[in-house]
Amino acid sequence: MPPLFERVTIAGVGLIGGSLALAARAAGLITEVVGYGRTEANLRIARERGIIERYSFDPLVAARDADLLLVCVPVRAIAAVARACAPALKPGAVVSDVGSVKASVLRELEACVPAGISVVGGHPIAGTEHTGAAAAFAELFQGQRCIITPGAHAAVAAVDKVRALWEGVGMQVDVLDAEQHDAILAWVSHLPHALAFSAVTALLDADGTCAPFAGPSFRDLTRVAASSVEMWTDIFLANAAPVDAVVSRFITALEELRQAIARGDAEKIRHELTRAQAARRRWNEQASGHD
Amino acid sequence: MPPLFERVTIAGVGLIGGSLALAARAAGLITEVVGYGRTEANLRIARERGIIERYSFDPLVAARDADLLLVCVPVRAIAAVARACAPALKPGAVVSDVGSVKASVLRELEACVPAGISVVGGHPIAGTEHTGAAAAFAELFQGQRCIITPGAHAAVAAVDKVRALWEGVGMQVDVLDAEQHDAILAWVSHLPHALAFSAVTALLDADGTCAPFAGPSFRDLTRVAASSVEMWTDIFLANAAPVDAVVSRFITALEELRQAIARGDAEKIRHELTRAQAARRRWNEQASGHD
Repeated sequence: MPPLFERVTIAGVGLIGGSLALAARAAGLITEVVGYGRTEANLRIARERGIIERYSFDPLVAARDADLLLVCVPVRAIAAVARACAPALKPGAVVSDVGSVKASVLRELEACVPAGISVVGGHPIAGTEHTGAAAAFAELFQGQRCIITPGAHAAVAAVDKVRALWEGVGMQVDVLDAEQHDAILAWVSHLPHALAFSAVTALLDADGTCAPFAGPSFRDLTRVAASSVEMWTDIFLANAAPVDAVVSRFITALEELRQAIARGDAEKIRHELTRAQAARRRWNEQASGHD
Repeated sequence: MPPLFERVTIAGVGLIGGSLALAARAAGLITEVVGYGRTEANLRIARERGIIERYSFDPLVAARDADLLLVCVPVRAIAAVARACAPALKPGAVVSDVGSVKASVLRELEACVPAGISVVGGHPIAGTEHTGAAAAFAELFQGQRCIITPGAHAAVAAVDKVRALWEGVGMQVDVLDAEQHDAILAWVSHLPHALAFSAVTALLDADGTCAPFAGPSFRDLTRVAASSVEMWTDIFLANAAPVDAVVSRFITALEELRQAIARGDAEKIRHELTRAQAARRRWNEQASGHD
């Protein structure tokens, strides 16, 4: 089987872009990878680790004749990077990204790529709290989900190739509307991050001496508060309306529990906890295959 | 070295009590363990697994001549169990527990044990979302923290022995006021559980179709929502005032972040995230020895 893409330009060779390059090359899905970025130290690590063959700081050199441009930079920088690279791409090439927000990104991308280039948004739901090419590893995507959001003008063949790329590195791929993606991710990813950051903030404001006593539950809750500030500021802003809606709903639920505790309402507490416990245990069972 | 306790009665042979029995026996800290409980199936498993030598449903038989009564039942049942067992204990025995709330429990215990018996509250900060004797394992406590809260009438020697017991199974022990304990635990344990239960509740109320897309951050956030409903209803009620205070402070912090997102205030978001990220990364470094 020939590779899906002959030359891939990865803009932002970090945890996601670097891991994709490692996994896709190992699976024979891509041939050559060119890195584009701003930080030479990181690009050198990427080359030394065999993630990329070569790199350039010039977008038109890095993207020359590529049939896939994969933009792996913070959400608010995606369109500018694509705009700078697009003129050098091979005719009929695909522009994709791995941003955690899709509706605003897709709108910007479709507005800036030349005719004949297909925009296919992508979001591999995988990651760790580490960043950079040094943190990349080929197994990152195994058994995780990936959501693809095709642009309105994308060729069907382009969508199929992007799907095959992520499936080829071990992901279960769903094709969704960008708006549907953003509403789902506000729940399953942006909310947990907002809670993690806020829990640490609240604890710092109250009492710094508690930290040594944090057990597994506090460590799990706040683990993602160690994530990239730049990336998460961008995500919150780029998905502001869905995040606002989800956080508001969460606050309503938490406030109900708080009030039940404050008034000693055992019945209400037991009812809410029973419902949550049953649902969470069901997910454990459903997820046990790939958790 | 002679064992710390010759005969230990464990009331409630579940994850914590069972693991303590396994670990303490392996370390030569205790000799005989008698189980007291309500569910024969569980007590049989405990005996088959070598956690206890024997068991009884009669508190006065189970506790006869024990020099340590360790009460490992939900917080609101601790005092009643201790009251039923106490008359059979050896003179000078120690009554301890492993409840997640200490001030109210200690008050109740000191009011119900006979003179000459030392009450020493204990809280090993360790656990999993699993329950019962079948889930017990000797390594549960290794490298974790334990807080001990001595009663006002406890003998110094009794406090030392309880401390030696938990240190002997691998824990780092701190002796604190019960009120201090409860304020700390409201932050590091009760808050994460309240958030986990509320996140699942809010998601169920909004949209059940998101669950399949939950990545590691949502799974980590909500993992403890699979915990025991009975235990957590009791904890929230027994520590109502500190939990109310901590949840209120958390809601204030989250509400500030939500408003910053809603009004697109990048500066404010970046500031809060930077502060939280720095603190969380410091804890990672501090905890790396026993995380």
